[in-house]
Amino acid sequence: MELPDVGGHPTMATSVEIFDTTLRDGAQFEGISLTVEDKLRVAEHLDRLGVHWIEGGYPQANPKDAEFFRRAAAGELRLETATLVAFGSTRRPAGKTDDDPTLRALVESGVSTVCIVGKSWDFHVTDALGTDLDEGVAMVADSVRFLGAAGLRVLFDAEHFFDGYRANPAFALRVLEAAAMSGAETLVLCDTNGGSLPHQVERIVGEVVSYFEGTRIGIHTQNDSGCAVANSVAAVVGGASHVQGTVNGYGERTGNANLMTVIPDLTLKLGISTLPEGRMELLTTVSRAVAELVNLPLAPSDPYVGASAFAHKGGLHTSALGKVGGASYEHVDPSVVGNRTRVLVSDLGGRAGMSLKAKEFGIDLDDRAAAALSERLKELEADGFVFEAADASLELLMRRATGWSDQWFRTEAYRVSSYHREGDASAHGGIELATEATVKIWVGDERMVAVGEGNGPVNALDAALRAALSDRLPALHRIHLTDFKVRVLDARTTHGNADTGAVVRVLISSSDGEDSWTTIGVSPNIIEASWQALSDALVYGLLRAER
Amino acid sequence: MELPDVGGHPTMATSVEIFDTTLRDGAQFEGISLTVEDKLRVAEHLDRLGVHWIEGGYPQANPKDAEFFRRAAAGELRLETATLVAFGSTRRPAGKTDDDPTLRALVESGVSTVCIVGKSWDFHVTDALGTDLDEGVAMVADSVRFLGAAGLRVLFDAEHFFDGYRANPAFALRVLEAAAMSGAETLVLCDTNGGSLPHQVERIVGEVVSYFEGTRIGIHTQNDSGCAVANSVAAVVGGASHVQGTVNGYGERTGNANLMTVIPDLTLKLGISTLPEGRMELLTTVSRAVAELVNLPLAPSDPYVGASAFAHKGGLHTSALGKVGGASYEHVDPSVVGNRTRVLVSDLGGRAGMSLKAKEFGIDLDDRAAAALSERLKELEADGFVFEAADASLELLMRRATGWSDQWFRTEAYRVSSYHREGDASAHGGIELATEATVKIWVGDERMVAVGEGNGPVNALDAALRAALSDRLPALHRIHLTDFKVRVLDARTTHGNADTGAVVRVLISSSDGEDSWTTIGVSPNIIEASWQALSDALVYGLLRAER
Repeated sequence: MELPDVGGHPTMATSVEIFDTTLRDGAQFEGISLTVEDKLRVAEHLDRLGVHWIEGGYPQANPKDAEFFRRAAAGELRLETATLVAFGSTRRPAGKTDDDPTLRALVESGVSTVCIVGKSWDFHVTDALGTDLDEGVAMVADSVRFLGAAGLRVLFDAEHFFDGYRANPAFALRVLEAAAMSGAETLVLCDTNGGSLPHQVERIVGEVVSYFEGTRIGIHTQNDSGCAVANSVAAVVGGASHVQGTVNGYGERTGNANLMTVIPDLTLKLGISTLPEGRMELLTTVSRAVAELVNLPLAPSDPYVGASAFAHKGGLHTSALGKVGGASYEHVDPSVVGNRTRVLVSDLGGRAGMSLKAKEFGIDLDDRAAAALSERLKELEADGFVFEAADASLELLMRRATGWSDQWFRTEAYRVSSYHREGDASAHGGIELATEATVKIWVGDERMVAVGEGNGPVNALDAALRAALSDRLPALHRIHLTDFKVRVLDARTTHGNADTGAVVRVLISSSDGEDSWTTIGVSPNIIEASWQALSDALVYGLLRAER
Repeated sequence: MELPDVGGHPTMATSVEIFDTTLRDGAQFEGISLTVEDKLRVAEHLDRLGVHWIEGGYPQANPKDAEFFRRAAAGELRLETATLVAFGSTRRPAGKTDDDPTLRALVESGVSTVCIVGKSWDFHVTDALGTDLDEGVAMVADSVRFLGAAGLRVLFDAEHFFDGYRANPAFALRVLEAAAMSGAETLVLCDTNGGSLPHQVERIVGEVVSYFEGTRIGIHTQNDSGCAVANSVAAVVGGASHVQGTVNGYGERTGNANLMTVIPDLTLKLGISTLPEGRMELLTTVSRAVAELVNLPLAPSDPYVGASAFAHKGGLHTSALGKVGGASYEHVDPSVVGNRTRVLVSDLGGRAGMSLKAKEFGIDLDDRAAAALSERLKELEADGFVFEAADASLELLMRRATGWSDQWFRTEAYRVSSYHREGDASAHGGIELATEATVKIWVGDERMVAVGEGNGPVNALDAALRAALSDRLPALHRIHLTDFKVRVLDARTTHGNADTGAVVRVLISSSDGEDSWTTIGVSPNIIEASWQALSDALVYGLLRAER
């Protein structure tokens, strides 16, 4: 286990404010498009996690964000731990504060606290804004003072601070000083281009912290050098006590600092207080819930919260795990962040891994069954099956290897047909689209024939299967599908038309309201692959219902 | 632009060896399963990139790796820049070197250089190996000496070095010393559990570098604290001159240090020589080629090489890009790593982004067309279309907004049918599976009806469409599909059976041998979504052929 390393850094704070900007900077991530509903739900998760600040959006630039703040202020968002923040920029060059649309939108957003961004790199003031350095400073000072006079608490984001400090440290500090003197309570140093490295950040933050003794210094990093998390940690080592980042590191280009990593790094490795007591174990569920809401798959390799973060595959490691326990190859106890250890079965894991996994399922594999299963797994993995993500299918396979067989139903045949016809009126309107599936299934010695309609082929097959079986197997009523994933494999080896004939892997997740499980199917035909995963899903659900 | 920061670190080397372990440690990544063919091709890409060392595998532990080394030695792998390395561990406790199977496999692997791992954390020697500390040291010394006597160059990987050094620095150094005295040319410090932070790594590496003045010190990090890249950089700042990592950061659990990030960080930010002259611009293509070979999607947010790494979406940034150029929001010039700047169109990008994009396509959008297009894009994005990844569909949409219309073919109807029947003999063998598609298409005023068979519904539709059109549109012969991706959206909002009715997004990539393009389709029915992407793919290909 990692030893806390709290000594030797006299400047390090004992507690750090966590500022989440998933709803503002995170929404810039390619592929994210949040509704106002989504934003409200993400904010609830963040509050539950216990972050100090939630930056909700940029009301002037984005009508959706303005609506979010209206609905939050109208009582649709009740926060217990966090404080909501609205984001904006300073007034325009040579403009006035009292008729500035951005500042006005901030005042009208109904929040207690705002965060405004201003330029601290001289080159950007002269070339991007097209004004002089004195006006650049005045824009910051005037805007902070105006917002403070309107009764708001103000945080100041110094854009491009690290590049600016290297190019012209006197000007960069002068901008910060203007913000602080005008009432900004926190000065946030932004590595906007994300190009800095930790040893540089630690040094520069240290210099700023000494210069502004007593004022809270914050850090906001982007991941363009792959160091967003490390730069946040380095800033805290250098004396920062406010860290901005996002859930799962969402953010423009390469993303922002991933708070799911920064929070446990600071807490577990440096002994710094971040979230309120008892909240860190929500980290994994909040990370996954937000991934669902933004509708992007969470990388299994994400530190702390990813599905692979505490997964062990290599023969060396899995046998050591048996001997000396998790501390051998796990840097922290996974339960502390709400995650768990997993043993992966694969061609690299060998027999030892397989036996551990069988034990996890409560199955007693004798040597012969284990050898047969091992052969069968190798064949299936060569075909494209990956059981690491499909525990239920693996358990069924293991049970079958011990001689067990499911007797609920037997398939004779199915047929699925999809039909599309264009209306006369227009090329894009008036399309008639219909999908129908028929199944022929045996339950005992009775033959059931049923038909189902659906939005698509899998939906129609599921409907037909349930129409055939539900009367005889009422436990099916409790089983429902919760997720459906498709991956196309081996596209690289195909040529010409053939690649639409590549192998398709389907994963289906199901639930009976108490537990959930995942099954797999693989075939060149997506319908057949879905059928395999679908029938395994029902068999596993029936097996659970029987237990 | 980032300023090089080469001063102030007297211990820093001017050049660093890059050691790639994608084929050994990277293969432990969940979801990776490489064939020997795959391994040979990955090694060729690494050699082309110009890494110093390629660790090919662990011949004793893995028969596939043993075959890889046999075939490499037999002339199937010709390396021009890199040297191949075989991996193994030290001899067993209380064992002999000359009959040790791991050491024997290394000697027989046919390589010039080996890398062996040994334990440097006292707790692991006593508890995992079950032997005493003197024997732990002897295992390292004997094994290195034995391999050297067999004519091999030896690198030594000190497992759990950072945890070991904190727990018992004297023992950790004694293990390194035994390896060095026995002839190991490089001592690699491994952060096996991945739990260290950069300021800790920099300090400890600095101490080891001072202790072993003149011996090359290497670094091998895992990403469990989200700091694998930063820890590698910190080690180099501390004096290390050999960095181990993998392409795209593949590796067990959270992965290894991503060389696609470490290499440009060291070269572009610290002015250190890593790859031979002229190779760094291959970084993006090698990263993507290896992602294809291991069959895992590359994260768009990957630093330097990801599709989003230099993508700009926010209105603020895209308008600044127009004014002051890339340096404003790009930490390095993307062409240096073989990547490029992209402008993203989305609800956040607004009109400015859309006009930039139209210019990229050579389309002149007037204000009315832009307004209409903007509305249409909003509707489509609300339905689940994402044009960031489907430039060809976006270009067709933009052309249509200017009044252009494709006249090559018009769809009347299609039908796809899949049939599955089980044989009598067994539940799993003897399945009859067939898929057939019919299309009714107009070319001018001629109606074509054609049928196609395929492995799956999309394949059958593609075959039918080509059967109907190829005679009239011979340019279709040059167009082929190269990739097919499926994503299921909104599973979170569905309940019960309905979620197999969730919306499906299909992306199809196509090529005419010169250029490639991507099209999109979205529908609750996967077949309909595929049809949309497929017909756009052909239309775009025909448009290119006409130009």
